[in-house]
Amino acid sequence: MEIKRLSAAGLAIATLVFGVAATWPKQEVQRSPIYGVELPKGYRDWQVISVAHEAGKNNDIRAILGNDIAMKAYRQNIRPFPDGAIIVRVAWQYESSPRNDSVFPAPQSFVAGAPTNVQVSEKDSKRFAKTGGWGYAQFEKGVADPSVPLIQSCYACHIKLDAIDKQADLVFTNYSE
Amino acid sequence: MEIKRLSAAGLAIATLVFGVAATWPKQEVQRSPIYGVELPKGYRDWQVISVAHEAGKNNDIRAILGNDIAMKAYRQNIRPFPDGAIIVRVAWQYESSPRNDSVFPAPQSFVAGAPTNVQVSEKDSKRFAKTGGWGYAQFEKGVADPSVPLIQSCYACHIKLDAIDKQADLVFTNYSE
Repeated sequence: MEIKRLSAAGLAIATLVFGVAATWPKQEVQRSPIYGVELPKGYRDWQVISVAHEAGKNNDIRAILGNDIAMKAYRQNIRPFPDGAIIVRVAWQYESSPRNDSVFPAPQSFVAGAPTNVQVSEKDSKRFAKTGGWGYAQFEKGVADPSVPLIQSCYACHIKLDAIDKQADLVFTNYSE
Repeated sequence: MEIKRLSAAGLAIATLVFGVAATWPKQEVQRSPIYGVELPKGYRDWQVISVAHEAGKNNDIRAILGNDIAMKAYRQNIRPFPDGAIIVRVAWQYESSPRNDSVFPAPQSFVAGAPTNVQVSEKDSKRFAKTGGWGYAQFEKGVADPSVPLIQSCYACHIKLDAIDKQADLVFTNYSE
């Protein structure tokens, strides 16, 4: 902590002295705008809530993963999700697989290509009280997307679900047995 | 073990006495034909190797999960897979989601519906020496599919991959970062 503070102070001084914005230490930018949500450590090892294909502009295939608090809430059907629940949506380019199809009787295999982005929904009913208790983030190659309009679009879309499915607690994904 | 043996003996006696086949204890039929591969305990909690959509006759969306030995081999790019590696393919009906689409700008959301079946590939280079070291199984609602032609079709298909991708060790799924 002390090193971080000194480093931040040093950068602030550098900014003043040299008149240019110094580069902020990397760990300080790993949070989303508005919410300050981080990419959770070890999320790639989390359990699967479900999978989906998002056609249209995204055209991705995705795994929706949960930390232990989220998985417990899903499996015990607890809503709203308790504080500390984190849902991570990992997406990859949706691609046909000529390799697999060459073995199959017909072209039919669609697989995960290059990673696109990772979205995080974190529940904290106090910290994110203004947005239904959820904070949002999007990461590309592990770096938080700094776009404010992008991050604003998360809640703007999730709140729409509330009108048609009040029990969902603003979460699109249902658990798949 | 003793109880199991007594129970099996009891069923054998019942079969002799009453002249009809008594129901075998459930745990005894939880193995695939040919290979005797079981549904691994706790597989639904395993980590994600990748996801895919299988169109055509299956029309499913699937998560491919691995036990610790399989995940380590994938992440360290170890081939052939070591003995003890187990890969589980969980599949659900591929369905459009009118609920999600009602919120989205266009129909674009395809999600996991009801479970279809679970397929297991287990590596044991000695036990399954005749089939490239892999044993196969398919389960519907936790029950091993007893179809011999179905289980024969596993290796018949996986071995075709060997002709075009020798490094794959008969495994279709690649790891998604």
